[in-house]
Amino acid sequence: MIVLKLGGSVITDKERAETLDGDALDRAADAVAAALETPSESLADGLVVVHGGGSFGHYNASEHGVSTTAGTHDPTAIHDIHGAMKTLNAFVLSRLLEREVPAVPVHPFSAGHRDEEGELQLPTGQVTTLLEEGFVPVLHGDVIGHAGQGATIVSGDELVVELATSLEADRIGLCSTVPGVLDDDGVIDRIESYEAVEDVLGESEATDVTGGMAAKVQALLALEADASIFGLDGLASFLDGTEPGSTIE
Amino acid sequence: MIVLKLGGSVITDKERAETLDGDALDRAADAVAAALETPSESLADGLVVVHGGGSFGHYNASEHGVSTTAGTHDPTAIHDIHGAMKTLNAFVLSRLLEREVPAVPVHPFSAGHRDEEGELQLPTGQVTTLLEEGFVPVLHGDVIGHAGQGATIVSGDELVVELATSLEADRIGLCSTVPGVLDDDGVIDRIESYEAVEDVLGESEATDVTGGMAAKVQALLALEADASIFGLDGLASFLDGTEPGSTIE
Repeated sequence: MIVLKLGGSVITDKERAETLDGDALDRAADAVAAALETPSESLADGLVVVHGGGSFGHYNASEHGVSTTAGTHDPTAIHDIHGAMKTLNAFVLSRLLEREVPAVPVHPFSAGHRDEEGELQLPTGQVTTLLEEGFVPVLHGDVIGHAGQGATIVSGDELVVELATSLEADRIGLCSTVPGVLDDDGVIDRIESYEAVEDVLGESEATDVTGGMAAKVQALLALEADASIFGLDGLASFLDGTEPGSTIE
Repeated sequence: MIVLKLGGSVITDKERAETLDGDALDRAADAVAAALETPSESLADGLVVVHGGGSFGHYNASEHGVSTTAGTHDPTAIHDIHGAMKTLNAFVLSRLLEREVPAVPVHPFSAGHRDEEGELQLPTGQVTTLLEEGFVPVLHGDVIGHAGQGATIVSGDELVVELATSLEADRIGLCSTVPGVLDDDGVIDRIESYEAVEDVLGESEATDVTGGMAAKVQALLALEADASIFGLDGLASFLDGTEPGSTIE
């Protein structure tokens, strides 16, 4: 099966709080619907979609000073962030449902938590059951209960890594605002180690935990399955079984 | 800790589709808020609230022919039922938040599933974490992924039994439309076996799986902790540590 991330920056207008990029989301939903109509081999066991927060989650999280490590005990902060993410999730679901993709929501705040060490604990029996019953579970970056911290942020990227591992995904796709990992010559086709791309990505910084390219590449290198990073133009071909953009082995 | 069920028939107008009983919900929220301000001993380790569907969930479930055993693979049916329950959940949360109860939502569809035998699988790490961080998790009857069936209904009563068991609840309260289990002399104070009340309750019927009194009593008798069934008038005193209505040992 495939775990597909739709970047928050792809499907929202990151410059304006809580603003959808409806055209981009339509294009993404078109590609998903077309791929499911004539599924490639790796889609035969299903598709899990994860989307980021873009201008929905990030705006609310930063307003309340909540991050992946700085928590909150304020229920209003939780409702603001979680509510904004559910609104974006409802947009994503409705665009998919319009195209007869059997998409259903799985909200991480309801499903998982972080332990005292900050490790994400995400049981996936519900996702597996929904997949086996033919649905397309749609998760999203969210706020999440965190032992000792109240609640912190869980990013879409972190969920992708977690889901790909527990569900033993065959392929992972990150649909991003860029066509792949770039150096001076353009898109780097294949990446086998972080050292090989360190010069173009720089050191992974703490500020980039919920979305930066360096953190993405490092996390994806640690996974069993190959992962591709590509732009919206590459989504259809990725779902059809090719490897557009940069492939992280 | 306490697991408290607010009956769907208590907080909604069961005669009219998707209609809240705002006055009843206000009274319930008042009682919860007052109890948390000066918590009794059994509230010291927290409170989990579960609410039923009343005229929200039941209306949509029956329209789509979905029950605890008859499933659906239609995403529209899932969205209708789940959406109605989320709407009711948002009402419950907002009445609690208005009274400074740190209530947060946990949607069963996102959290659990039924296996091939129809057994409910509900991981509770997220609920425990939220409780320990001082929040009041609010769950609800819902639609839920079901291996081999698509998705079926999980009732609030079933969630209460599951949560009380996994969280090792000290006390269980079912706030109902009646003041307890009734015989000709009024409310039966204590119930120690099903045989003792079989005459007044009758045989548990298949049609009563999501809410009938006979099924409630049978499920509660199987639990370690004592459970009380009472009306809205008894809620404040239950939360303060007394045993109003009928207590099932």
